[in-house]
Amino acid sequence: VSGIWGQRFTEKCLRHGAEVVQLVKEAGLTPSYDEIAKVLEEEKPQVLFLCHGESSSGTKQKLDGVGELCAKHDCLLVVDTVCTLVGEPFFADAWGIDLVYSGAQKCIGCPPGLSPMTYSDKAYEKVMNRKTKPDIFSFDVTEVGRQWGFNGDKRPYHHTPPINIMFAMREALQIVSEEGLEASWNRHLNAHYQLWEGLDKLGLKPFVKNPEDRLSTVNCIEIPDGVDAPRLIAHAYDKYNLEISGGLGGTAGKVFRIGLMGYNCTPRNVESVVTAFEAGLKEQKWL
Amino acid sequence: VSGIWGQRFTEKCLRHGAEVVQLVKEAGLTPSYDEIAKVLEEEKPQVLFLCHGESSSGTKQKLDGVGELCAKHDCLLVVDTVCTLVGEPFFADAWGIDLVYSGAQKCIGCPPGLSPMTYSDKAYEKVMNRKTKPDIFSFDVTEVGRQWGFNGDKRPYHHTPPINIMFAMREALQIVSEEGLEASWNRHLNAHYQLWEGLDKLGLKPFVKNPEDRLSTVNCIEIPDGVDAPRLIAHAYDKYNLEISGGLGGTAGKVFRIGLMGYNCTPRNVESVVTAFEAGLKEQKWL
Repeated sequence: VSGIWGQRFTEKCLRHGAEVVQLVKEAGLTPSYDEIAKVLEEEKPQVLFLCHGESSSGTKQKLDGVGELCAKHDCLLVVDTVCTLVGEPFFADAWGIDLVYSGAQKCIGCPPGLSPMTYSDKAYEKVMNRKTKPDIFSFDVTEVGRQWGFNGDKRPYHHTPPINIMFAMREALQIVSEEGLEASWNRHLNAHYQLWEGLDKLGLKPFVKNPEDRLSTVNCIEIPDGVDAPRLIAHAYDKYNLEISGGLGGTAGKVFRIGLMGYNCTPRNVESVVTAFEAGLKEQKWL
Repeated sequence: VSGIWGQRFTEKCLRHGAEVVQLVKEAGLTPSYDEIAKVLEEEKPQVLFLCHGESSSGTKQKLDGVGELCAKHDCLLVVDTVCTLVGEPFFADAWGIDLVYSGAQKCIGCPPGLSPMTYSDKAYEKVMNRKTKPDIFSFDVTEVGRQWGFNGDKRPYHHTPPINIMFAMREALQIVSEEGLEASWNRHLNAHYQLWEGLDKLGLKPFVKNPEDRLSTVNCIEIPDGVDAPRLIAHAYDKYNLEISGGLGGTAGKVFRIGLMGYNCTPRNVESVVTAFEAGLKEQKWL
């Protein structure tokens, strides 16, 4: 837990009566492979949750090898890829991840309203063979599965899906596949490099100190001494029609956050962000 | 409980650990005021659930006076208006209903993905002052309320709303208000009369025997002896591009169901339904 998404997952688990042990890291840091290994050995959890991209602090979690570690400890690995899927390299099968969820409206570029999910065979078996029924009928995957034809072949009515968004998702995924996953990852990475090249010239510093831990899709910028952040954000909004986010949770008041995702992630938009920062800093006589 | 929606509400309550007493009626019938009064007196429930429109059997629940009855017994009245809101007269306040929910995609005519809800002051107070947190963070109204500004004025991030559908809902409600609620109710009622006038001439009978209990928005037709229902449904689909539903739950294999809702509910569409029935029955040499 190093930001609001780990915190929120904790809250959700606690509400369901789960016992939760947190591996806490300061905002801007991520746990190492060794730290994860130690917790798995000491706590023997049934589920390990990791956030691939912690958007509140702009960190990217290294996932390489963690799946094998979890398999060794008979622990399911659940990963939040809301702000990374399609934007950062991610390999659910090769990395041995048991349950992945994401959001429609980030790098996939679909309107909000859907959460793509995938289960490993092990997670699927676990969920389909649970002995207690989940409290919420609408979220019961065995029931959802009946309608969608992956739990028996009767396909009874379970819910009315948001069909318009599903067609939008189909179109969004077609656009993704036309570009190609690797090309999309590279586009996001190049935009990230372009952004930091520009910000660096202005004297702005990344909040995440280790370059390897930096998300390309959500970029956190330290608010420098002497800069009025709300004023800079308002200036960018008024003059450049550009929304710059503030921090969330542990980064509130400490950072600007720049999302470069999906359709939004173009060299021209990055230029416009850098220009807005330059103008905003000049307007405050900081530059 | 006289159909699948009462059944489903039961299932949902049981999953949350509630004690449920069912007032069971056969499909096609609805409980009377006196029957409801008796159950309230005997069982003293905290919540009474009624389905305004039970779409699986085409019945409409009389709600007049039930709110007062519930208030007298200090019981909250929860009403499902999924297939009735905007299509049938409904008065949440005048009828003293504490919690109402509906669907976007029925008579309101918005794409699916939203459920409008309304709380009475009493229900609102109850929900905002609960001592235990609901299991599901996403469905916790106190949390939802923070984002939407009806629980404090901080408005922290809680969820990403399906914003496109919300704009669609705004537009749908504008269309509803341009027509006017009364005009909309009358349009649905007239379509219902027109439908039954046409079906009556073909010798088809309503499944709901008491005309006062018949929904105008969902019409159940008895499958007459000698008629092959799936064949008639396939015929209407192939020749008239028209989808006729079969029964659900207690009406499965017993009825055809015709939804006349929202945009779909026009004299021309009703004509086309009657024509499809006539052609289908002739094709089977039943007429």
